[in-house]
Amino acid sequence: MNEKRYDLESTILSLVESKRYASLRDILTTMNAADIAVLFEELNAEALPLLFRLLPKELAAETFVEMDSDAQQLLITGFSDSELKEVIDELYIDDAVDIVEEMPANVVKRILMQADAETRKQINEILKYPEDSAGSIMTTEFVELRPHFTVADAIKSIRRTGIDKETINTCYITEPDRKLCGQISIRALILADEDERVGDIMNTNVISVSTLTDQETVAQSLQKYDLLSVPVVDGEGRLVGIVTVDDAIDVLQEEATEDIEKMAAITPSDKPYLKTGVLSLYVHRIPWLLLLMISATFTGIIIMNFESALAAQVALTAFIPMLMDTGGNSGSQSSVTVIRGLALQEIRFRDIFRVIWKELRVSLLCGITLAAANFLKLMYLDKVGVQIAFVVCLTLVITVIVAKLIGCTLPMLAKKIGFDPAVMASPFITTLVDAISLFTYFQVATAMLGL
Amino acid sequence: MNEKRYDLESTILSLVESKRYASLRDILTTMNAADIAVLFEELNAEALPLLFRLLPKELAAETFVEMDSDAQQLLITGFSDSELKEVIDELYIDDAVDIVEEMPANVVKRILMQADAETRKQINEILKYPEDSAGSIMTTEFVELRPHFTVADAIKSIRRTGIDKETINTCYITEPDRKLCGQISIRALILADEDERVGDIMNTNVISVSTLTDQETVAQSLQKYDLLSVPVVDGEGRLVGIVTVDDAIDVLQEEATEDIEKMAAITPSDKPYLKTGVLSLYVHRIPWLLLLMISATFTGIIIMNFESALAAQVALTAFIPMLMDTGGNSGSQSSVTVIRGLALQEIRFRDIFRVIWKELRVSLLCGITLAAANFLKLMYLDKVGVQIAFVVCLTLVITVIVAKLIGCTLPMLAKKIGFDPAVMASPFITTLVDAISLFTYFQVATAMLGL
Repeated sequence: MNEKRYDLESTILSLVESKRYASLRDILTTMNAADIAVLFEELNAEALPLLFRLLPKELAAETFVEMDSDAQQLLITGFSDSELKEVIDELYIDDAVDIVEEMPANVVKRILMQADAETRKQINEILKYPEDSAGSIMTTEFVELRPHFTVADAIKSIRRTGIDKETINTCYITEPDRKLCGQISIRALILADEDERVGDIMNTNVISVSTLTDQETVAQSLQKYDLLSVPVVDGEGRLVGIVTVDDAIDVLQEEATEDIEKMAAITPSDKPYLKTGVLSLYVHRIPWLLLLMISATFTGIIIMNFESALAAQVALTAFIPMLMDTGGNSGSQSSVTVIRGLALQEIRFRDIFRVIWKELRVSLLCGITLAAANFLKLMYLDKVGVQIAFVVCLTLVITVIVAKLIGCTLPMLAKKIGFDPAVMASPFITTLVDAISLFTYFQVATAMLGL
Repeated sequence: MNEKRYDLESTILSLVESKRYASLRDILTTMNAADIAVLFEELNAEALPLLFRLLPKELAAETFVEMDSDAQQLLITGFSDSELKEVIDELYIDDAVDIVEEMPANVVKRILMQADAETRKQINEILKYPEDSAGSIMTTEFVELRPHFTVADAIKSIRRTGIDKETINTCYITEPDRKLCGQISIRALILADEDERVGDIMNTNVISVSTLTDQETVAQSLQKYDLLSVPVVDGEGRLVGIVTVDDAIDVLQEEATEDIEKMAAITPSDKPYLKTGVLSLYVHRIPWLLLLMISATFTGIIIMNFESALAAQVALTAFIPMLMDTGGNSGSQSSVTVIRGLALQEIRFRDIFRVIWKELRVSLLCGITLAAANFLKLMYLDKVGVQIAFVVCLTLVITVIVAKLIGCTLPMLAKKIGFDPAVMASPFITTLVDAISLFTYFQVATAMLGL
């Protein structure tokens, strides 16, 4: 699919140059909004508004939503008031909110001025909810039915209002006080008898979330229960919006990226890499590097304390990198496994002893295998004395066990006390394991080699 | 929600003990399949079949799908042939295939014997496709319409067959030779005039995938184009199945987990951690630990070669862990960012020079900041000579730059030559960066300190 798009790109650029607008319109209308957006982002500031105006109204709005905020701002600045109004009228509320959140104040003011009163009210309503809450990502355009409706009434009501709703696949049933009392799929409505009452055939066992529920939890319940949308209710159980599955997918992908970034000691950012400035990347990375550098100096202090032992046996120094790396790798294997398990809710805090017991056995197996391989190498390749070989291998087994135990417990404890487990991943554990393994190394060496 | 479930769990267990089956049935029928499955997995082998039989037919099948393969096998073994047939009849084809794939041969045989001829044929058909292909995760139960149908015909056809389809939200239109020619949403059908022809109002610009398309690509196109299902066509463009959004979410989460595992030097496994045996965990982890341990010995060789320099200046040893850790952390920040960017298709190979140029500037900023902080610490806390401080800080800057450049280029090159970029993550880069930074360290030290 990618190949096709890039060929098209050069075709379109040459059509823009030769001003073949009719052909351009024909090509663009056969394309999908997501692909047009990628194409448009590569255009220069002059060609963009020109090509955008070629799109039919609905496709224009869909494309607008898919573009990055820089391109959106460029377009809005170039729009006349009526053009702006046309685009806003076509947007779903949740998309409008996303755009408003990214724009500078003067552009937001223009957008809200062009929106009709009802849209403006709904945008402001959603903007009130805390970032990353269900309220902030929901849409207020959903199909609402009453229990006393017959199936025929319901379908009539959907026909009348459905064009403006983000989805009609699941309809929600509320009491006159707007309290959510059930849901029904469009499939159930179509398969049902025309005279049946919605209240009699609706599903009353509704999974719902509150406006303040964290977006990750919302996305997880959509995944867990295989839903196409989940209703969002306020503190009094009144239906105020829905979160649709397409937004849930984006949330899940975002959260996975955030966890990956945290595990690699980066402060998460929600901008794609290529759109992020050098300074911003620096700011997201340097605090962790500094912090970890400072904690690595503890390892240095341990080495300093054993300076005389090392001077007597410089050969010991040669195995420090191997011990540190193996400890770090063993620890991050365990920590990353546990962190992902916690994120996917496959592991819970109450499982901590099962996890420790499992990691203990795995680390014993790994430690002994690594030590055995290393012992052979030390004796036959490096040809060090059997005593040094023994010191190195004993340290290796202890390091691997300690690393795996720290690696699995630290993220679980972090989660328990309300910290983000992902932050407890490899770099922190590596630093800790480094210090412990070096300390063990020198203790074992002093004892066995009589340094 | 979790809290609620755990309270329920003890209630249910005590009801099982006191054999209050009527109340149990009442409780279970208000619950969701996903929650019942979690509950059932904790039951002992005796209580499970007993409670399972309390579930109404449809809920029983849904719950069965959600359970892990051990519990499924336990149940199947206990089922009579007619009970097994009842469950299989209720399953969607793609779920039946998932179950068949996890079962031992004798159980598979029993399942296929109880399935009706058509189901058996469809299961066998899907089993033929390679693992992780669109064909292997698709379902063959979709709504298929013809272009000459009127909207009224279409809705009548959906009413007649829709009950057995996995989704009716998007209907696919095929020619008599089964070639896919368009799609229409149930919403468009409901909003359209009864007499209009499907062929006139359908969307002919259909995103489709081939049976052999990789499941990650399939899931990404569902996400990119905000689809609820994507049609799967064979080599001749004939519609053979669809992949629905709930399966796409699972694929995306699985792929993220796999990437995270690979980045932490673990061979990916598709079993949840707590269900994976100690030996299996060992087998997934030990090859990488061994490989990385062996490559870490190169770092040891470098140290050995500078043994005499180190013997003269043992203080230099104290900074080895700090240099190695900072190099490793800097490198993995870059590699992990690039690997995730590649996975999300935010970064492409043609961007390689933009990425290198960006990382070069970021690494200069990071390197200088770290070196400055370290210089102050070396001079005022560690009170080492200005020459040693200079050696350490110069090495630090070089290490950070090299680490970030290797970190960003290696995954992109890996992807280009068809390797998995995630495998190129932190551990490999750390080992490489370790060797380079130590080599630099000793070169700089020898030159500046005249060792």
